[in-house]
Amino acid sequence: MKNFSFYNPTKVLFGKGEVDKVGKLVKEYGNTVLLVYGKSSIKRSGLYDKVVSLLEKEDIKIIDFGGIDPNPRIESIREGGDLCKKHNVDLVLAVGGGSTIDASKGIASAALYDGDPWDFYSYKVESKGALPIASILTLAATGSEMNAGTVVTNFATKDKNGWGSPFTNPKFSILDPVNTFTVSPHQTGCGIVDALTHVYEFYFSNEDAYLNDRVCEGIMKTIIHYGPKAIENPEDYTARANLMFGATLALNGVTGFAKDFEGFNHSTEHVLSAFYDIAHADGLSILAPHWMEYILSDKTVNKFYEFAVNVWGVHPNKDKMKVAKEGIKRVFTYYKSLNMPLYLTDLDITNPPLEEILDKAVKGETIGRFVALTKDDVKNILTKAL
Amino acid sequence: MKNFSFYNPTKVLFGKGEVDKVGKLVKEYGNTVLLVYGKSSIKRSGLYDKVVSLLEKEDIKIIDFGGIDPNPRIESIREGGDLCKKHNVDLVLAVGGGSTIDASKGIASAALYDGDPWDFYSYKVESKGALPIASILTLAATGSEMNAGTVVTNFATKDKNGWGSPFTNPKFSILDPVNTFTVSPHQTGCGIVDALTHVYEFYFSNEDAYLNDRVCEGIMKTIIHYGPKAIENPEDYTARANLMFGATLALNGVTGFAKDFEGFNHSTEHVLSAFYDIAHADGLSILAPHWMEYILSDKTVNKFYEFAVNVWGVHPNKDKMKVAKEGIKRVFTYYKSLNMPLYLTDLDITNPPLEEILDKAVKGETIGRFVALTKDDVKNILTKAL
Repeated sequence: MKNFSFYNPTKVLFGKGEVDKVGKLVKEYGNTVLLVYGKSSIKRSGLYDKVVSLLEKEDIKIIDFGGIDPNPRIESIREGGDLCKKHNVDLVLAVGGGSTIDASKGIASAALYDGDPWDFYSYKVESKGALPIASILTLAATGSEMNAGTVVTNFATKDKNGWGSPFTNPKFSILDPVNTFTVSPHQTGCGIVDALTHVYEFYFSNEDAYLNDRVCEGIMKTIIHYGPKAIENPEDYTARANLMFGATLALNGVTGFAKDFEGFNHSTEHVLSAFYDIAHADGLSILAPHWMEYILSDKTVNKFYEFAVNVWGVHPNKDKMKVAKEGIKRVFTYYKSLNMPLYLTDLDITNPPLEEILDKAVKGETIGRFVALTKDDVKNILTKAL
Repeated sequence: MKNFSFYNPTKVLFGKGEVDKVGKLVKEYGNTVLLVYGKSSIKRSGLYDKVVSLLEKEDIKIIDFGGIDPNPRIESIREGGDLCKKHNVDLVLAVGGGSTIDASKGIASAALYDGDPWDFYSYKVESKGALPIASILTLAATGSEMNAGTVVTNFATKDKNGWGSPFTNPKFSILDPVNTFTVSPHQTGCGIVDALTHVYEFYFSNEDAYLNDRVCEGIMKTIIHYGPKAIENPEDYTARANLMFGATLALNGVTGFAKDFEGFNHSTEHVLSAFYDIAHADGLSILAPHWMEYILSDKTVNKFYEFAVNVWGVHPNKDKMKVAKEGIKRVFTYYKSLNMPLYLTDLDITNPPLEEILDKAVKGETIGRFVALTKDDVKNILTKAL
């Protein structure tokens, strides 16, 4: 097991009705809050009004900042950061999914920086601080509610980049599964695939980390088990609850403590998103199964065998390759059952500028840690996924 | 899934050589440290000298406080608290196992309290603060390195009680598996049983918490897998590493987020320890298997079936009761293979004052949440375990 540091100071308040605590919790940090959210969904569901009323009850001044995009733009970070400076904001409160929380982390960091916040995302400057961040989660997917990461897109340069700092862990995050009841079947499927892919990024590795892998398997089994239930019955509290905290655990440290991030799926998908503005998880859903098929070999068969037996319940068998293939087949079948895309053409992407995409995706010689892939490999995978 | 709050601000530094960082880490909190440890083992292993030299390199003044007992005494808490006051200690550094860390939490709290620290352990007074605490762990067992709990014994009153506060989470804990190479086979067995029992306390419940249970199973499987390997080859780094962080995860929140502590095993064992000063895990090793056998019924069979199949690898079968029984049988067999005691007579306890023990163990009508047990039930279990 490799050396690691494990530290996650975000406080999670989980369950029905926990949102009621937001006013008092925010008040501990000050009297002015930047309220960050996406499109109209939280207004339709009534959550927006509820949060506003809870904050106002504590005499907290609200600077309203809606309209964060599903792939949050650097322009929003700049604008939000300026609002914080102008109004002396004390805390940035995200109400929404991963995009809104990611944006809030960027905004809270921009608030304490004089330059262009793209400097952080382009790795020119390291953030030296951030306003306190908090979140009310409405989508089980990215895990951003309990980690430091922020991913933002610059469509001008076709770059979708991520970073995190010791200052960007939310102070607290409120997770009420009821707030995910209105998430559409497709968005629910996206959340499932996103969370599973976060686990894949650690699970598929050459590190010998038994404990880490067994925890990963438990989380994947849970997400796989409850995914279809939540889609079938959107108000199944148990399913929504397991998916919600499952997605949190998928990227809060417990799936990756003794591992390095594999990288292929996220890096390549970020490039696709930056080219086509597709939903992150749609991209992941297309990439991961083809990637698995492509990298399965005598060298990787043991890991895929474990994956098949321990996660997908494939019957163990002496023919490890056969079992491994069956496991990957189940990924295809499962994603299909969630109505998630499996081919780029499912998203009407028919003739992608492969060379340009490859240049962005594979910046060094290779990409991916479990299996190092060259540009040719990535081209083969993308072609397979056409 | 029930509502919960999930918060654990302890930073873990894990792996070979991480102890080298202790000087600089302590320095962040001040210049005077109370160095708390147990008997001579850290002196024999050279760890004591190493830590002292690393602290001295940073010009940190060391107040030396050794001699903490395996069942730490309230007298040590009083004495340590007085030392902190006298020397204006800035941080309490535990070097040792769970007992030493538990004691350090009591001491750090006593340092900021004018009364008798037994007030905290007898639930008369709630602690309002504590000096910063840190630890260097030398034993994979209690999980104290990453939680707020402290358990201390008052042999005068035959009480062994525990509590925790928002101030008693260690700021940081250093976990180098190499520091557990010298742990004896019996102590290693004790650590395995202690950690497993922590998981049982959450796993065995009537709460429907699929995610929680799957994570519990991953951690139990890991501990069970590596236990015998560490005993057979004490310098097997991989085994020691998996056991070490497995024991940490067993009681740092990830095994119990959506559960309440079951309670029977720990509460009853604490009484046994307070009567006989036996090793905590020896008591747990005797109690848990008999408790499982006693509470197995049509009502609990599903949980024990899951336990048998998912943790012990018993082949699934339509006869759930048969599978459940086989699972419990494996617990007996496994503990025996670790040379852990299975009966009170194995510890030369032949004629225990049952009524007196029952009065201490069952303070209300019943004990235990998974299955509520009366005094008669507990008497039956203890008699079975004689």
